[in-house]
Amino acid sequence: MKRWKVKDVLNNGKTGTKILVKGWVRTKRSSKNVNFININDGSTIFSLQIVAETEKFGEQLLKSITTGTSLAVEGILTESQRSGQKVEVDAEKIEILGIADPEKFPIQPKKHTLEFLRENAHLRFRTNTFGAVFRIRNALAFAIHKYFNEKGFYYLHTPIITASDAEGAGQMFRVTVLDPLHPPLKEDGNIDYDKDFFGKPTNLTVSGQLEGELGALALGEIYTFGPTFRAENSNTTRHLAEFWMIEPEMAFYDLNDNMDLAEEFVKYLIAYVLDNCKDDLQFLAERLAQEERNKPKNERSMDLNEKLEFVLNSKFIRITYTQAIDI
Amino acid sequence: MKRWKVKDVLNNGKTGTKILVKGWVRTKRSSKNVNFININDGSTIFSLQIVAETEKFGEQLLKSITTGTSLAVEGILTESQRSGQKVEVDAEKIEILGIADPEKFPIQPKKHTLEFLRENAHLRFRTNTFGAVFRIRNALAFAIHKYFNEKGFYYLHTPIITASDAEGAGQMFRVTVLDPLHPPLKEDGNIDYDKDFFGKPTNLTVSGQLEGELGALALGEIYTFGPTFRAENSNTTRHLAEFWMIEPEMAFYDLNDNMDLAEEFVKYLIAYVLDNCKDDLQFLAERLAQEERNKPKNERSMDLNEKLEFVLNSKFIRITYTQAIDI
Repeated sequence: MKRWKVKDVLNNGKTGTKILVKGWVRTKRSSKNVNFININDGSTIFSLQIVAETEKFGEQLLKSITTGTSLAVEGILTESQRSGQKVEVDAEKIEILGIADPEKFPIQPKKHTLEFLRENAHLRFRTNTFGAVFRIRNALAFAIHKYFNEKGFYYLHTPIITASDAEGAGQMFRVTVLDPLHPPLKEDGNIDYDKDFFGKPTNLTVSGQLEGELGALALGEIYTFGPTFRAENSNTTRHLAEFWMIEPEMAFYDLNDNMDLAEEFVKYLIAYVLDNCKDDLQFLAERLAQEERNKPKNERSMDLNEKLEFVLNSKFIRITYTQAIDI
Repeated sequence: MKRWKVKDVLNNGKTGTKILVKGWVRTKRSSKNVNFININDGSTIFSLQIVAETEKFGEQLLKSITTGTSLAVEGILTESQRSGQKVEVDAEKIEILGIADPEKFPIQPKKHTLEFLRENAHLRFRTNTFGAVFRIRNALAFAIHKYFNEKGFYYLHTPIITASDAEGAGQMFRVTVLDPLHPPLKEDGNIDYDKDFFGKPTNLTVSGQLEGELGALALGEIYTFGPTFRAENSNTTRHLAEFWMIEPEMAFYDLNDNMDLAEEFVKYLIAYVLDNCKDDLQFLAERLAQEERNKPKNERSMDLNEKLEFVLNSKFIRITYTQAIDI
């Protein structure tokens, strides 16, 4: 039997259909006779409710179904009493694919702090917040490629290990295979980089710009989208040691063409996520609104969706360098 | 006046239209009264012929237009006498944007060896061969994202700098900010990695698989597509020190599902380039055929397009591990 994704069940499932779904338990509520198990498979932020009669499956099996348990469920789609969802699954067969010890599994159905989730980075994908962030990030990455592809730009993979420091954009990580304790030395006492992997000192790229420019001077319009690195121990939210960067390089563009591109690009991406990530954005908007409520009124930010619509629908004002300095 | 790309001129240009094109000179032929200048802007493998009357532009200007010169040309589209192209540009205005000294510019209108182009890597984008390769690589990269996006996979950017060695897939590059000549030492005489950037020894990833598996166990189906590294001095065509790798990871898939995905994926990519890179593939097919002609008949490979069609239209045979060992 072919597996249905939860997203497809919720969007297109017709009552009366027999289906197979697989996923991880988010929550379970039990009364004496019936158990409500919500499973999620990552395809959407929403979970699918499984209704399992205690008599049919036995207390033993149902007891071992806790948050994080991996399940395969066969059953009939029926009309749901649950608000916001049209269907639920009347379970006929439940197979436990993987258990999750409730004493040890740290992701429980409650709000965890971001700090706690950072400590459990391998599991944080399973929370609504990180699931939403990663689905939106995926949509944005695809939209970036789609935009440039439609414009006739070519995607270049510029080197990550490099001997160039681009424009001196930041401190660099050294990349080496030399023995750290006893590196080979030259007669003058300095490191003998002839013996390193590439025969010279190399580092992680801070920018693909130089190679991008060479590409643009032959292919016309190119972009890079890959990891770049800064060995700056700034520990701020603005600067990660490793981050993905987009660098478009265009031959025959003037400053106005560049500004047109930047504005069109940002708006394209916003329009794309507004169209394709409604549920995840709505979740994050509500989460943000909750946090904002703790702030004084005049410090609260706009609603997330409102903010995105505002950028999308505003014309970007263009000022000269001198005007910018004056501000 | 809005610039036309060469690709759009050749595909959609109507005679009588006044246009502006920009590009780099590929070849120039001159007779006493008229000059034929072919320019390319990377948007297609084909060049656009510019017809410039000597009288109109003067010998001085025309002399400085050599291979590699960057030009902006305004003119009227007229019917071309040249085989294979419908239109050419009857030049009214020529602006030289950048000159290319014919004594020094190494890319000339003749066949260069791949070895020579490797030495001139910053210019090789401008040759037909590398232009074709990069346009096809771009199309394949986009097709990879398009395929997984249509299947509901999420794109994960897994870490490049890592303290894990995945499955021990190969020798690693060390990433460090420690002083190479005088690294900090612990009391026992070993390197004190507490003082390195991340407080522990780190290296470039050989695989995003571990993080991919964690993502799949929450988001369902994920893929990575990013650079990976091997510090193996093998110097073969099979192993680069740095290369981009695709790693799909799927929850709830069995071996047959995996094989279905692999076959469908390969065929999707081939179909995509056959549809979208006809001109570039045709050029490479002819180039390959020329090289094959120097080989004995029984050693010649299939035509490039034929080979791609063959893979696309064949059902992949599936054998067990034991059968594979026996072969």
